[in-house]
Amino acid sequence: MRYARVSAGGRAVWGRVGETDVELLSGSPIEGDAQVIGTVPRDTALWLPPVVPPVFYAVGMNYPRHIAHAGAAVPDRPEVGYRANNALTGHGSPIVRPAGVEGRFEAEPELVAVIGRTLKHATHDDARAAVFGWTIGNDVSARTWQHQDRSFWRSKNSDTFKPMGPWIETDVDALAQTTTLRVNGEQRASFPTGDMVFDPFDHIVEITRHITLQPGDVLWMGAESTCQLEPGDTVEVEISGIGVLSNPVHPEGNHPS
Amino acid sequence: MRYARVSAGGRAVWGRVGETDVELLSGSPIEGDAQVIGTVPRDTALWLPPVVPPVFYAVGMNYPRHIAHAGAAVPDRPEVGYRANNALTGHGSPIVRPAGVEGRFEAEPELVAVIGRTLKHATHDDARAAVFGWTIGNDVSARTWQHQDRSFWRSKNSDTFKPMGPWIETDVDALAQTTTLRVNGEQRASFPTGDMVFDPFDHIVEITRHITLQPGDVLWMGAESTCQLEPGDTVEVEISGIGVLSNPVHPEGNHPS
Repeated sequence: MRYARVSAGGRAVWGRVGETDVELLSGSPIEGDAQVIGTVPRDTALWLPPVVPPVFYAVGMNYPRHIAHAGAAVPDRPEVGYRANNALTGHGSPIVRPAGVEGRFEAEPELVAVIGRTLKHATHDDARAAVFGWTIGNDVSARTWQHQDRSFWRSKNSDTFKPMGPWIETDVDALAQTTTLRVNGEQRASFPTGDMVFDPFDHIVEITRHITLQPGDVLWMGAESTCQLEPGDTVEVEISGIGVLSNPVHPEGNHPS
Repeated sequence: MRYARVSAGGRAVWGRVGETDVELLSGSPIEGDAQVIGTVPRDTALWLPPVVPPVFYAVGMNYPRHIAHAGAAVPDRPEVGYRANNALTGHGSPIVRPAGVEGRFEAEPELVAVIGRTLKHATHDDARAAVFGWTIGNDVSARTWQHQDRSFWRSKNSDTFKPMGPWIETDVDALAQTTTLRVNGEQRASFPTGDMVFDPFDHIVEITRHITLQPGDVLWMGAESTCQLEPGDTVEVEISGIGVLSNPVHPEGNHPS
């Protein structure tokens, strides 16, 4: 099943995505039984981030080729960092490059696990059972700020820097898929989605030794490859079996400050 | 006015805190006009974190004496990091020291600004008008993990590591107050709350150059001093004009994993 959040009548509404329509739901499918309350044609849907997480977890160095390229050490245990909800935006909405950003402004195509239940001290079996479904993330990064700043606050968390979507796919073997990154229709990268140092379940087991995961939490799994983005581009991240997350890149307008 | 969230009938309910009672409210005072729907005696209230933020911002090095003590460079501009909502706990609830933590396990007493409105590209005047009120945070930190790990994920974000409360005070000149840290009734630190390199309004102006702040976001402002905590201790953070945040420290029980 594919679940999304769309804008309907000015509100964020959960939906079940079919071939031609999105059935609007009375509540969150993560929380329980949601009833169908209407439909919108799929090709006119305004897609929102498919979930706004209580906590937004992100894995850094997690693909062997990325780690080798960066000259970094291979992690000996799973660790996570954080991203911020203000940066989330949906499929089809613009990524805005801030006026002050120059140089490398890059896309990072990532698999995202969406947590479906409250979880602590999880076994691997618990971890597998706790994933509600899978979506796609683009961890847009302004490298100059990433190198200048003490944290990733603006380099990875400026408004619109975290496209996520288009939907959550509940029936897919996510680690057996292929991740593809395209700009203006041209392929820039393609790699096996599951070629990770530590997979999502390894991370969930480690995180929940100390932390309670909650329904709706998301775990972004890192990327093997990146590519440059320029205003005017359209960037697509495809994960086979899940879907395509597509966003245009816009320049920021002028602001008084 | 003092606003809190308390547990009533198994639900989280907003309340207005008086001398002897907490008036329960129909909704969030940050969002608009909430109606009184009941009362509970103040001395029996079960205090929750006074807000669960959409984004949880935290300032690191921000007090000159702390920076000098750490041998760090004085920041030349405001920056922020993040903490995670799973770690929040309320006034009176235990801080649980994980079984794997040894060595320095410390309290950091912090002023917290609670954002009241949506805000981007703020001036200093906008920033002042956007603060709904002030509360108190204790940025509990496991230093061994902080030094071992690539991020602060478990050193500062394990469950119960972020006591916040007891309430939000809307009528106080927060930067003119005194912050006091006590363990088992003994004073361990006392410093002028406002003796910061960059104040909350400086941070809000800088953050909102790139990031939209939202109602309920919190900004923890850093600490001048820290002190060691042991299981069995009770730690209090007082900020004059706001209140006292008190939490017992418990050892973690045994877990199968």
